[in-house]
Amino acid sequence: MSLKTKQEERIFRALDAFAIELPSWAFANTGTRFGKFLDPSAASNIGEKLADAAEVNKVTRCCPSMAVHVEWDFPDGVASAGLAAQLARNHGVQIGSVSPNVFQDQQYKYGSLANPDIAVRTKALDHILDSISMAQAAGSRDVTPWFTDGSNYPGTANMRQHKRWFEEGLAVAHGALAPNQRLLIEYKPFEPAFYHTDIADWGMALRLAKAAGPQARVLVDTGHHYQTQNIEQIVAWLLDDGMLGGFHLNDRRYADDDLTLGSIDPYQVFRIFNEINHFEWETGATADIAYMVDQSHNLKPKAEEMIQTVMMAQEIQAKAAIVDRQNLAIHQASCSLIDAEECLKSAFYTDVRATLVEWRRWKGLAPNPLKAFRGSGYLERVSKERSGRAQAVSSYA
Amino acid sequence: MSLKTKQEERIFRALDAFAIELPSWAFANTGTRFGKFLDPSAASNIGEKLADAAEVNKVTRCCPSMAVHVEWDFPDGVASAGLAAQLARNHGVQIGSVSPNVFQDQQYKYGSLANPDIAVRTKALDHILDSISMAQAAGSRDVTPWFTDGSNYPGTANMRQHKRWFEEGLAVAHGALAPNQRLLIEYKPFEPAFYHTDIADWGMALRLAKAAGPQARVLVDTGHHYQTQNIEQIVAWLLDDGMLGGFHLNDRRYADDDLTLGSIDPYQVFRIFNEINHFEWETGATADIAYMVDQSHNLKPKAEEMIQTVMMAQEIQAKAAIVDRQNLAIHQASCSLIDAEECLKSAFYTDVRATLVEWRRWKGLAPNPLKAFRGSGYLERVSKERSGRAQAVSSYA
Amino acid sequence: MSLKTKQEERIFRALDAFAIELPSWAFANTGTRFGKFLDPSAASNIGEKLADAAEVNKVTRCCPSMAVHVEWDFPDGVASAGLAAQLARNHGVQIGSVSPNVFQDQQYKYGSLANPDIAVRTKALDHILDSISMAQAAGSRDVTPWFTDGSNYPGTANMRQHKRWFEEGLAVAHGALAPNQRLLIEYKPFEPAFYHTDIADWGMALRLAKAAGPQARVLVDTGHHYQTQNIEQIVAWLLDDGMLGGFHLNDRRYADDDLTLGSIDPYQVFRIFNEINHFEWETGATADIAYMVDQSHNLKPKAEEMIQTVMMAQEIQAKAAIVDRQNLAIHQASCSLIDAEECLKSAFYTDVRATLVEWRRWKGLAPNPLKAFRGSGYLERVSKERSGRAQAVSSYA
Amino acid sequence: MSLKTKQEERIFRALDAFAIELPSWAFANTGTRFGKFLDPSAASNIGEKLADAAEVNKVTRCCPSMAVHVEWDFPDGVASAGLAAQLARNHGVQIGSVSPNVFQDQQYKYGSLANPDIAVRTKALDHILDSISMAQAAGSRDVTPWFTDGSNYPGTANMRQHKRWFEEGLAVAHGALAPNQRLLIEYKPFEPAFYHTDIADWGMALRLAKAAGPQARVLVDTGHHYQTQNIEQIVAWLLDDGMLGGFHLNDRRYADDDLTLGSIDPYQVFRIFNEINHFEWETGATADIAYMVDQSHNLKPKAEEMIQTVMMAQEIQAKAAIVDRQNLAIHQASCSLIDAEECLKSAFYTDVRATLVEWRRWKGLAPNPLKAFRGSGYLERVSKERSGRAQAVSSYA
Repeated sequence: MSLKTKQEERIFRALDAFAIELPSWAFANTGTRFGKFLDPSAASNIGEKLADAAEVNKVTRCCPSMAVHVEWDFPDGVASAGLAAQLARNHGVQIGSVSPNVFQDQQYKYGSLANPDIAVRTKALDHILDSISMAQAAGSRDVTPWFTDGSNYPGTANMRQHKRWFEEGLAVAHGALAPNQRLLIEYKPFEPAFYHTDIADWGMALRLAKAAGPQARVLVDTGHHYQTQNIEQIVAWLLDDGMLGGFHLNDRRYADDDLTLGSIDPYQVFRIFNEINHFEWETGATADIAYMVDQSHNLKPKAEEMIQTVMMAQEIQAKAAIVDRQNLAIHQASCSLIDAEECLKSAFYTDVRATLVEWRRWKGLAPNPLKAFRGSGYLERVSKERSGRAQAVSSYA
Repeated sequence: MSLKTKQEERIFRALDAFAIELPSWAFANTGTRFGKFLDPSAASNIGEKLADAAEVNKVTRCCPSMAVHVEWDFPDGVASAGLAAQLARNHGVQIGSVSPNVFQDQQYKYGSLANPDIAVRTKALDHILDSISMAQAAGSRDVTPWFTDGSNYPGTANMRQHKRWFEEGLAVAHGALAPNQRLLIEYKPFEPAFYHTDIADWGMALRLAKAAGPQARVLVDTGHHYQTQNIEQIVAWLLDDGMLGGFHLNDRRYADDDLTLGSIDPYQVFRIFNEINHFEWETGATADIAYMVDQSHNLKPKAEEMIQTVMMAQEIQAKAAIVDRQNLAIHQASCSLIDAEECLKSAFYTDVRATLVEWRRWKGLAPNPLKAFRGSGYLERVSKERSGRAQAVSSYA
Repeated sequence: MSLKTKQEERIFRALDAFAIELPSWAFANTGTRFGKFLDPSAASNIGEKLADAAEVNKVTRCCPSMAVHVEWDFPDGVASAGLAAQLARNHGVQIGSVSPNVFQDQQYKYGSLANPDIAVRTKALDHILDSISMAQAAGSRDVTPWFTDGSNYPGTANMRQHKRWFEEGLAVAHGALAPNQRLLIEYKPFEPAFYHTDIADWGMALRLAKAAGPQARVLVDTGHHYQTQNIEQIVAWLLDDGMLGGFHLNDRRYADDDLTLGSIDPYQVFRIFNEINHFEWETGATADIAYMVDQSHNLKPKAEEMIQTVMMAQEIQAKAAIVDRQNLAIHQASCSLIDAEECLKSAFYTDVRATLVEWRRWKGLAPNPLKAFRGSGYLERVSKERSGRAQAVSSYA
Repeated sequence: MSLKTKQEERIFRALDAFAIELPSWAFANTGTRFGKFLDPSAASNIGEKLADAAEVNKVTRCCPSMAVHVEWDFPDGVASAGLAAQLARNHGVQIGSVSPNVFQDQQYKYGSLANPDIAVRTKALDHILDSISMAQAAGSRDVTPWFTDGSNYPGTANMRQHKRWFEEGLAVAHGALAPNQRLLIEYKPFEPAFYHTDIADWGMALRLAKAAGPQARVLVDTGHHYQTQNIEQIVAWLLDDGMLGGFHLNDRRYADDDLTLGSIDPYQVFRIFNEINHFEWETGATADIAYMVDQSHNLKPKAEEMIQTVMMAQEIQAKAAIVDRQNLAIHQASCSLIDAEECLKSAFYTDVRATLVEWRRWKGLAPNPLKAFRGSGYLERVSKERSGRAQAVSSYA
């Protein structure tokens, strides 16, 4: 380890500072509206999910926390939250961001915080306030509600009224935050609402976050954009305004496909990470960003896809770390287009995998986390334990 | 009826000739991957679906048949098909197109006709052959398989091999058709496959239909196109080659949203219908097209949305019927762009609703089918009958 | 006028209040990067453009002003502006919004307000300040800069730095406005910049307008959106915040095609106008919106396409005026989805053309402005006068 | 060179076999509809373009031919073609594919082969036949017409009639080919036609190529697809049918942006090249594909962007050459999704740049072609020679 190059040092520092939060639902059976393909190793309760997440962390040393969804993970509310936090500690990890769920219950058919029925709006708000309490009980900082409110057909909803209901509800939610907590506002153009979604883009999320209060930030899900939209530019604007709270990382080709990070367009992930690195280099500040995975592991083995995702994220983060920032800035300032572009590309095309192996060795990890996991026998063991259970899969129609 | 204008006569003739097939699944509970909102009136077996379809036909006199999905509607195969046909006759309708289902079973996780495992390919083909037998038993002409084969990640599938497996399987299926039957090949760019879908566009469907045999045609689902793709042009090309078999009608804004026909972009539906009308006017031929609805009635009351859909289709068909074709042709030939466009627009902006009311009166129908249905007490009755049942809704994760 | 129905009254009031500004460039020869097709009647200076605009206004009584582009219309700056205003008055119209041009000169190759070269930034800002003076000299209220700043390749520009340069420049420009003037910030996702555009969406425009000062508003060009983006929702949010300054009206199918308004998706135009009408009905306020056309008349005869556009806009505005707002609000509040949707649709499908003819008669206009224009001999006269001129058309390569 | 690894050998063989044709127009001044930024080094006649192309070939040894556009490069028709071929030989290169131009002349305002005016259709066909003669005179194999025929507004064109006119015209053109020549049919969804383009997608191009005759193939321009369309799948289908004639290589983010190859989505280029490599590996055949660049060098120095493009293409081709095909096939056959994907990714993330340097050294080339070009003084010399000329740039309006 004595003779590391400067590039290797930068990669080591980047990896040391880089933590990725795993989503509990990525270990469960998920699918599309046309059905779910069941995986015998799929987790179905918070204990199993934490065990899986801990296993991923064991081979990557990069994932100290697991995001939870109240509906699926805290069946008994605040009590569940406390127990889950303890269970997490036992596994050497912790509970990460907490997502309220105000879209699954039958009562939310016509919306939650923007439901025309004040009784439903109240219930939704109560659930969010409860979720904030649960987050506090679980020792979590970030509350990450995702809203499906919107409409499927023109004329069926008053979009301005919806906006005002969201302003009201989020302000109340913000008021319940503990001083160290944050409220992250996520946006998504469509699905499950198909004509309009109330928080459809980053501009709406920013507008609502500003109105909610000083602890609110915007959450960028990389799959929640219009085709061709420049995500790294949105990231740059949010960084400049101090309003970027975190990411839901995944990839997509068409809609919100929730595919493995970097599986479709890795250069875009690199450009996003580059933007953050450049911001930190220029300002000397450390961007306070929660990196969370949000994927649907429909076909690949779930824990393995998770490990693959983490390895990909680290690889791209390492590439972003070795961009020659001084030169990039000089070429940008002189409008030397080809030189600026080649400067950026050069980092992307550098093979950093050997350095990642070095870093893992230095951390006492196996060089290839995926192989290490496969060799551990964990998958076979939990598959046997979990496979006997009945699993409900409802038909599309 | 004596003093109808020429325009009214054209509309009457168009409506007399226009039949729309209803999908059985539109009467059942459907939803998105995030869940289903249950409707107490939702049908859950072939008997209830036929009763609902018959009720829609009663108030519209436009929907003589109902499309079925083998998996959901013919639980006992050929035997179910015969019974269903009898049941349909009792309701004054008939069984329409028959869709095999080779995507829902766990065995189809990695594909059906293009599954690398020959055992699964064989099962899928057997199921399609069975479906053809069921269609024959049910007196149905069109067999309409929809394939979800494809892949979610680059590198995981051999796309050329998949193509050849489809060529083989569809040729065998074609060989089992009765002389009066047709095999309609549907295409879809994505979902549930997210990286590549084996039959992704009309060109692939056309290529496979040509290879399958002379009774194969292409099925156009209006929601299965890339954004901005010109659907009416595809329709025009297929018509010119005698390869347009039918439509799955619906609307969408983003992906394959399966919204009510004409709810988002009615002018596009008009342009599609106009293309068919113009083809028939120019050639003197009658296009042999199966018009089928394929929608997901997630939020609106199901039978009501069905009636709304049929009314919309009739309204747009009526508009397409009154385009001044002679003038349109003259303006096109002389490149009088504004006159040609205004000629087309004039038909679209003509309010044909009063003429539709006349046609309904002449048929002995109530002037407003939706009101007639609402006034019939049917919905209340079946809601009561059906609402007690347990309904399985699996959680997203 | 005595026996008008309530619906007719609403349409008359809507038409009385509806003014559309014509763009000077729509009367000139325009094209694509692959070339221009020359029209013998095309205008090539401010005098001819004003004459054409006045002719359109003569037959529509709806277009009292003409938008100008400094580069193309005010060759001598403030002096030109004063003369143009006088000329406009002679024609019975006036000079409308004034667009600086900071994208055509060779010096703007790498940007204007966000050019890394401070000398170019200064020139661009000076030009905008000059344009504000010209607008004052011409008696214009709205200054409407459109910026092409951005980059074509990843890595070649510092997007956060660009943002801050825009904040600086626009604040200075705002400071030069007269008390009655407005600065309208337009956004566009791409073209001519292909990787990132500095003001790419409504969120960025809103952010910059807020930073610029209280007389800044957002300008919505209907063709400047991502595919599937919900424009009427953006309009609703801007209305609710009092930040909607005006529209550039046109239609498109793919990119920024600058086609005739309503030629591709008329229902979307209707939904936008409906949103504004509903806002005014609910609040009792009058939205202070500048309706401007921004189209490229590449193939159709220019003045005729302009008249066709104005007629279309009036027709859709009339439809939006007769939506039964009370019922719409009731159905929205009760989540009666089908009734709410049908309420909106009913207005769209009402044929308002006879009422528009009535309104024109009442105004002393010919019933069909397009026919009136064609019958006037104007086109033949100016085609003869203008056709002799040499016209420069550069080749693509 | 004695101790090359197997991977290096594969890369060397791939590079030896890989030739890229340069487009003459990439050395000329190009721009967008909003204007052109003039480059003092831009070429403006066939001599200068050939000199530039030869210079690119000198430093890359990869570009033995230059594609020409009849309108811009062969002002005197067949005579020009013969002279150009001689000139090319003098420069050590040759004339590549020949593109007729039936879109720029004023007569093509309403189309070429599908113009409703038979006189224009005839002229267009004559020009294509002339172009075939010119190609023969220049010793070129591929004739590559690109058609802009279509329409901007619904109703203004008879799309089926257009289709038949294309079938007729292309069959005649095919009849004039010499036995060794090919007719490559290109498709493009839009621009400059904005409502419908006659040859809009690969299915239409394939359909027309099949109808034209056995020497017709499809030309895939990587920028001419709907957003999210899977280009490598189209390539796979065309390969399987023996119908892939060649590529126009470039990159894009939004529309047909004609950006530097691999500048936006390099992984997609890799997947396309991978598909071809896998086809050749599986079949033992050599795909007969013309690789041509088609870019607009609007901002970057033209020859430099060309060199950058060639280097990128070689780099990605090298990556595609080292995919472990045997293992990929095994993982695909067993549906080992993660292993298959990682197998493909591993090649992409391998840094092949050092091996490219080796290959260049072995060829007697400088290790970095871009640096070599910059050091040659060529750019300075031609900039001085060419910069004095008047350059016509017409304004947008």
